[in-house]
Amino acid sequence: MPYQNTAERWGMWELSLEGPEEGNPFTEQCVKAEFCGPEGTVPVNGFYDGEGVYKVRFMPQYTGTYRFSVTASFLAEPLTGSFEAVPASEGNHGPVGVAYNYHFAYADGTPYYPVGTTCYVWDLQSEELRRKTLAELAKGYFNKIRFCVFPKHYIYNFHEPVSYPYEGTPCGTSEMTVENFKEYGQTDHGNHFDYMRPNPAHFRLVEECIRQLMELGVEADVIVMHPYDRWGFSRMTPEADDLYWNYVVNRFSAFRNVWWSFANEWDLLREKTVADWERYAGIVVENDPYHHLRGIHNCRAMYDQNRPWITHCCIQRQADVWPVEKVNEWREQYRKPVIVDELCYEGNIEPGWGSISGPEMVRRFWECTMRGGYAGHGETFLHPQGILWWSHGGDLHGESPARLRFLLDLLKTLPEGGLVYRGRRIAVSQQKTGVGAVTVEYLGKSTSAVKTYHMGEGRYRVKVIDTWNMTAEDRGELSPDFSVDLPGREFMAVWIVRTA
Amino acid sequence: MPYQNTAERWGMWELSLEGPEEGNPFTEQCVKAEFCGPEGTVPVNGFYDGEGVYKVRFMPQYTGTYRFSVTASFLAEPLTGSFEAVPASEGNHGPVGVAYNYHFAYADGTPYYPVGTTCYVWDLQSEELRRKTLAELAKGYFNKIRFCVFPKHYIYNFHEPVSYPYEGTPCGTSEMTVENFKEYGQTDHGNHFDYMRPNPAHFRLVEECIRQLMELGVEADVIVMHPYDRWGFSRMTPEADDLYWNYVVNRFSAFRNVWWSFANEWDLLREKTVADWERYAGIVVENDPYHHLRGIHNCRAMYDQNRPWITHCCIQRQADVWPVEKVNEWREQYRKPVIVDELCYEGNIEPGWGSISGPEMVRRFWECTMRGGYAGHGETFLHPQGILWWSHGGDLHGESPARLRFLLDLLKTLPEGGLVYRGRRIAVSQQKTGVGAVTVEYLGKSTSAVKTYHMGEGRYRVKVIDTWNMTAEDRGELSPDFSVDLPGREFMAVWIVRTA
Repeated sequence: MPYQNTAERWGMWELSLEGPEEGNPFTEQCVKAEFCGPEGTVPVNGFYDGEGVYKVRFMPQYTGTYRFSVTASFLAEPLTGSFEAVPASEGNHGPVGVAYNYHFAYADGTPYYPVGTTCYVWDLQSEELRRKTLAELAKGYFNKIRFCVFPKHYIYNFHEPVSYPYEGTPCGTSEMTVENFKEYGQTDHGNHFDYMRPNPAHFRLVEECIRQLMELGVEADVIVMHPYDRWGFSRMTPEADDLYWNYVVNRFSAFRNVWWSFANEWDLLREKTVADWERYAGIVVENDPYHHLRGIHNCRAMYDQNRPWITHCCIQRQADVWPVEKVNEWREQYRKPVIVDELCYEGNIEPGWGSISGPEMVRRFWECTMRGGYAGHGETFLHPQGILWWSHGGDLHGESPARLRFLLDLLKTLPEGGLVYRGRRIAVSQQKTGVGAVTVEYLGKSTSAVKTYHMGEGRYRVKVIDTWNMTAEDRGELSPDFSVDLPGREFMAVWIVRTA
Repeated sequence: MPYQNTAERWGMWELSLEGPEEGNPFTEQCVKAEFCGPEGTVPVNGFYDGEGVYKVRFMPQYTGTYRFSVTASFLAEPLTGSFEAVPASEGNHGPVGVAYNYHFAYADGTPYYPVGTTCYVWDLQSEELRRKTLAELAKGYFNKIRFCVFPKHYIYNFHEPVSYPYEGTPCGTSEMTVENFKEYGQTDHGNHFDYMRPNPAHFRLVEECIRQLMELGVEADVIVMHPYDRWGFSRMTPEADDLYWNYVVNRFSAFRNVWWSFANEWDLLREKTVADWERYAGIVVENDPYHHLRGIHNCRAMYDQNRPWITHCCIQRQADVWPVEKVNEWREQYRKPVIVDELCYEGNIEPGWGSISGPEMVRRFWECTMRGGYAGHGETFLHPQGILWWSHGGDLHGESPARLRFLLDLLKTLPEGGLVYRGRRIAVSQQKTGVGAVTVEYLGKSTSAVKTYHMGEGRYRVKVIDTWNMTAEDRGELSPDFSVDLPGREFMAVWIVRTA
């Protein structure tokens, strides 16, 4: 029974058990544990990792001594022991949670401003390609990435994944075309998977990716279900679905950087009902001891974002013309943080959702931010080898990532929380008054060459931000009534901090 | 009694009469005429032109002999005579009217695609400045211009006009500031105008401008009333208003290029009621024998565009985010041509309505056009001498005018009528099928590098239009299913003409 004697606060403690290989260990065996430490007693489920090995994982919320007791269907007596949780190492701020109602913070109180991206199945590509993706992420453009556990069947992405989540063999694609690919995915073409026997190697691969992201300080927004499928994974029985959800939650919950993205485009999973989603929510709420963030992403119809298990709105923009300008309305409607996790992709593929320019991507991020929300990036450039960041990861080719990092760096200078929209292009920091309060005017597409402000009282440090050229020009400390000359270009912002 | 023996079809025939100068000739005398020619008998009102001279003007709709009979309150007997209407000279296509329900054509059947601009009081500037304005218009960027009869009192435009529409003296501006200018205009500050005695020299100046525009082939969209006032012209009595409307109509109607823009921002003329506007409409409908186009422009509240006297919707965009994308909805709602005559101005002044970029201006024009409507340009660049095209005319400084002329030249190649929006960025020509039918996809902000078309049958000549760089690249004749490679930049269009 190997287990660790110490674990980092918000790190992972793990214990391995040997047990039976015969029969179906996923359904016939059961491992449970209780951890007793500074947060009280925490029940945790174990999982089967293949080849007769069962595992229990735990993420301590505090420093101090934790005692554990593990029971299993194949053990006569509980196994007990203890370990020490030591202080978090540098860069480990704990899991992200909701803060200030509409914003986020790490468990240690450090504000977290999501600037995410999407690479749906970067985790299921070759090791070389995964290394490239991680190398791009290491540049700090993004602090969250959305990706799937299941492989993806969609235009620009018809090749097979490096592994499958179940034991068995996949259907071929010999009769599939770009025209019939959707229907092809909805019929049975000779898949031979046992949906009651997950493939541990597949999940080890996904969690290796989660771990690598954690080391880079990137949140793993794990998409548990999605409709882009030809292997039957979107059309399993409720029994198989429940086994899957339990398995995912029991394996991944102890990673501090996990978020649960219940679905991508939940409304396109035609065979799942709201009752199904609510049942999955019950599994996650009951079995994730750490209450990781939970969202569910839409295509056209939004899931009822008022449901109590939903911690934040994960929204795909609904219209070309109001792509992100409803963020402040959504905030008021749902009274939760709003992330527009899909607002079209920078790129040049044929569909409208995959062909916005770099400047438009950056504009949408700023517009979301000004309205007190957050946004998600993605990239879809045609590529000679068919490698599109949006689906596969790889190299970034667009102009927006550096500008999004520039935005993130600016957000980190806010006094606390994020921005609150005041209308007429003005946002203020959560701390609205007094020294340190921030007022931002994002001019967007306006080309005004002058802006006038009447701040009432105090003194103000004024910076002129070029959100595209990534410059912040200090205009010094000014009295409360002042005019700011601007270059008359699009995408400027005026950043005003009260200093006295 | 000097009068012309000939007049051009759709040109102007004029007769001058000597009459009394004493009393108030504007209210105490009356001149009427009847013209009998190919269109039947047409009653026409004359007007007093000062210094004892009364005038009658007439625009013949046909070639042939016209007999006239003029009566006057100061004449014992009618004056009669005749003249010949000769064929229109080159470039004279007659007045513009509605065609194909949503579009426009000159009286001779030549299609007219409005690509307008706005210079509110260019007509009331120095002669040197007016010459500059005309020199810009001679470049063919625009074929319509909106401007006012009354002078304008508004930011960037507080100087006095070169003349006043009434006899008298204006208030000063000594106590006026940029802060109080609106209230200043709503109180009496010592104007001494006789609103029952128009100043003929002022109207001669306006009509000289109308004539110069006519010579350039530019329609004169005459704004009869507006709220930007400190001289009391927006706050006259009903009696004075009626005298003014009659005077304007009787003087200007015989210019073939006149359109009646009843108001700029009618809803800001707080002292005028809908009943007033309907009364003015009655005056115009009854006294303009040629039924020139009639529109009424809004600030926030649209006038009921279903009113029968309104020939076309003259709309100011209502929102920043849907600036022109409702054109197709407005068309369906009102079943009249739609011109978004104010969609913000290219420039760099502080207000949002005066600080859009050249590319955004051009994008809005294309978006209006694709949706089966039309648009209006304007320009508001800060200027060392305070000369802004939007208000004063002068020199153009922006990037959009050349691109709007490029759009106009493309529209002139349409088979008939304008475009009909089909949704999903596609518009088709009024002639929807058969050889000559045109299909346009305007990609707007999409950066797609390829677009695929399935036209059904036939052969198609395909051009790739760069709406910003003003190039039209011929891709040859193609069979009905084809893909078009694009450069992956914003603002491209694909222009497809069926050839077989």
